[in-house]
Order: sequence, then C-alpha cells, then structure tokens
Amino acid sequence: MATVMVNGLPGPMATAVALEVVKRNLQLAPMSLCGPSRSGTVNVESVVVQLCPPNEHDKAMEDARAKYTDLVVVDCTQPHVCTDNTRLYAKHKVDFVMVATGGDVAEMQRLVKDAGLRAVIAPNMCKAIVALQSMLQHMGEKYPNALSGFKLNLTESHQATKKDTSGTARAMVGNFNKLGVPFSVEDIKQIRDEEQSKALGVPETALNGHAFHTYDLQNESVQLQFQHNVVGRHSYAQGTVDAVLFLMKQTPGVYNMINVLESGMIS
Amino acid sequence: MATVMVNGLPGPMATAVALEVVKRNLQLAPMSLCGPSRSGTVNVESVVVQLCPPNEHDKAMEDARAKYTDLVVVDCTQPHVCTDNTRLYAKHKVDFVMVATGGDVAEMQRLVKDAGLRAVIAPNMCKAIVALQSMLQHMGEKYPNALSGFKLNLTESHQATKKDTSGTARAMVGNFNKLGVPFSVEDIKQIRDEEQSKALGVPETALNGHAFHTYDLQNESVQLQFQHNVVGRHSYAQGTVDAVLFLMKQTPGVYNMINVLESGMIS
Repeated sequence: MATVMVNGLPGPMATAVALEVVKRNLQLAPMSLCGPSRSGTVNVESVVVQLCPPNEHDKAMEDARAKYTDLVVVDCTQPHVCTDNTRLYAKHKVDFVMVATGGDVAEMQRLVKDAGLRAVIAPNMCKAIVALQSMLQHMGEKYPNALSGFKLNLTESHQATKKDTSGTARAMVGNFNKLGVPFSVEDIKQIRDEEQSKALGVPETALNGHAFHTYDLQNESVQLQFQHNVVGRHSYAQGTVDAVLFLMKQTPGVYNMINVLESGMIS
Repeated sequence: MATVMVNGLPGPMATAVALEVVKRNLQLAPMSLCGPSRSGTVNVESVVVQLCPPNEHDKAMEDARAKYTDLVVVDCTQPHVCTDNTRLYAKHKVDFVMVATGGDVAEMQRLVKDAGLRAVIAPNMCKAIVALQSMLQHMGEKYPNALSGFKLNLTESHQATKKDTSGTARAMVGNFNKLGVPFSVEDIKQIRDEEQSKALGVPETALNGHAFHTYDLQNESVQLQFQHNVVGRHSYAQGTVDAVLFLMKQTPGVYNMINVLESGMIS
C-alpha cells in the first residue's frame, strides 16, 4: 500500500488531497514540506503531520525515503518552489504527482528521466475536465475547420483572489482555432466580481473557491455550448489520488492525466 | 459541376436543400420526385422544377440519368418511401445523399454496394452536431467510466408536431453509458410545449422548427454541460450540400457525415 507524503500543508489544496488520501485508505506520511513561515504540526483526521520548513526539506525527504518503501509525494506547493522541490525528489529517488502549476515542466521532465523515476505532471487534475479537453483536442485534430463560421464567446469565473486568466481556458483556445474558429487568449472574458459570478450560477458558498467555464459557439442557426463548472477542490483531490494509484503500477517515465484516464484506474 | 436532383419538393427540408444548391452555384435539376398528392411545378430561385408523382418516378429518374453526367440525388422524402426510392436510384445507377430518416438503412447499404454506387447515408446532416456526437463517442471509447459518479439530465425540445423522442438524443445515451453514467432512453425529458420551449431559450420564431438538446452532468462538485441548439433547417441544408461535393470525389461505397467531416471538405 502506498504511503503518500503531501507537500504544501496546510494549504487548501494540500489539505484536500491529504483528506482524500486518508478517505481512500492510503497511508498519509506524517511529514510535509512547507514554506518558511510555517512550523509545528497539523492534524489530518487522526494523523499528526509535522510541517518541515525549507531548512529541513532535505532531511525530511531523506527520512521519508528511508522509512517508506512505496513512497509517493504529492506536491501541492507553489509555482516558485515546485521546480526546486523536484530536484529534491530526484535526489532522493521519490516518485511524485505534481499538482502545483507554474513550474518549469521541461526541467521537471528531465529530472524525472535522469533519475529513472515515475511522475504524473499535469496542469489540471480534475478527470472530467481533462476528458473534455482531450475530446476537444481530438475534435480539432480529426475534423479541421468543422466549426468554421462559428463565433466563440469564452467566459470564465474564478474567486476574486485569482489574478491571472484561467490556464484551462487558455489551453482550450488552440483547439477551437483548429476547428476553424478565430479566437485569441485576449478574447477570454474573465469574471472576478462576486455579483457577476453569482449571475453565472456560482453558489454563494463557492465565491471564494470555484472555476466556472462556458464556451459558447454560434452561427446564424446553430448554437453549441460547453460548460465545466467546478466548486471547491474535492474533484481535484480525487483525481490526484487516482494519479497516485495509477503511478504505482507504471514503469519509470513522465505521465499526465490523460494517461490516468486512459488506464481506466479512476474512482 | 454536379447536377443535384432534390427529391421531396416542395417539403420544407427539400426546399432548404434546393435553395442551398442554387446558392452554392451547383446546378439544380428541374425535376423532383414527390408524393401522390402533388403535381405541377415549383420555383426555386430562377429554376422551375417539375414535381413528379409516384407513377412518373421511374421515367423521371431515367430522364435525369440520361441528361446529366454528374447527377447526384438528395433524398428529402419520407420514412415510408425512402427505401423504395433507393431501389430506383440503384436501378438507374444514380449516386445519392439520403437526408430522409426512418428507412431501412441495411437494405439501402446493400443496394448501394450491389449497384456499385456512391452514397452518403446519415441520420443527422448538421456538421457541428455530428462532430459533437463523434467526440462523445470517442470519449466513451477512450476513457471508459471517466464520468462515473455523475448524474445525467437530458432535455430535448422540438416543435410540437414532432411526436417521437429525438433520435440524436437517443443515439447519445450509449456514449454516456460507456463513460460510466447510468441512463436509459426513457429518462430523456421531452419538451413539446411552447411555453416550456421558450423557457429553454427557443426563440418565438423557431417554435415550429427547432432542435434543442441539453446534456447536464453533475456530481457533488463538478458540473459538465453540453448543448446543441438548432433553429430552422439551414445548417442541415449546408451539411447536405457539403456531402454532395464530398461524394463526387469518392470511390464507390457508403459514407456517413463523419467521413465528410474527416475530409475537411466543408463550407
């Protein structure tokens, strides 16, 4: 049975993953790499997890590696540290699932290959969204210009604290271009205003944590619309633990969430 | 340049196709197979088309075959006659696009093959919808159970004169089953009431001719929604003429709209 070390506690994504690890009856490692402003312990259900600030990172990874045979790290840290963390995972030969985004993915891939590790590196852990993305990618490749003549409106709503444009929405734009729909990333309509988010159907309780996307395509007589609306972090945590279970059955290499979906090893 | 004989004039679908033929600068044949209650001529833009009732069908096909080298029939007739019509097309060696639904497709395919013809036989001529169907089929095959745990609500609205459940909606159900979503054709919610249709967003002017479909998938934290909403018949007519142009470049055989889309030969 896997022992999962969730780095980034007590952040909200790391907390959601740690809870899912316990819920799925995997073993949660009692240590977590954290940032410089943290210390002490946090409780995840009945597990007391020691928070390890940067000066203890190397030692924590060494201890975890020595203690747990089937160790897998889930990295829910920050864009500016996740690439350095990967160097530590490579040094100590620990397989990992990278949930944090914004790192140097090419460098991570190189580190994984050189160390002969197994890793899932994916920009979105929500299986339903990954499936939809893959589906639109397939459509664009298989049916070039199938939607020529359509006009796209792309609206995304997130919690007001999210400053940049949705990466998921940005990644979709290229697929629509292949389908013959002119559109650029700058045309994405961002909503970060609570009233506008509510008008789009975001529940009051999710104003501080949601990811709503609507792709509306119209020509003079046909409307096609796709929506993926996520509330909270549970669906990402589920997909992350699926990725851990998937990873334990693989040979060394870098995988993504499409590989996890294709395996059918999903909860 | 193709000469296109549109059978089923002056019905609304045949009329839409005949207008599209003229608009796309193809030649419209000046005769059309029609039902027993019709006679005389109809004007399609500047073309005067002779309506040929059943006792003249054989002669009309013979004349058309003799007169036009690149003849293609588009059959927009009725479920109870389109299979017999196919026998006539086979007898006179005329390639065709079958827009009418409800015929004996297996028998049509046999007739096409035995006569060495080319035909497009497809239940839905709207390219955008065919692309979406193909995409969901691909998703079901490639990612089995990717949407397990989701609950589906499928709502379709059509003009009140349509008595049966949407064939397009029915065809989609199997794809969702493959994705791990339990659902049966009986669970489809049919709307044939004008007020309810309007509440779904159908414009007043389209109450007597529309096809709106919403597939709403939800679990506790994720909503995925697909819609395809068609007003009038123009999009079907466009796809039909695309199918004619596609067909003229093919070797003998039976094709469908997915083949047309894959060819990229679309307007």
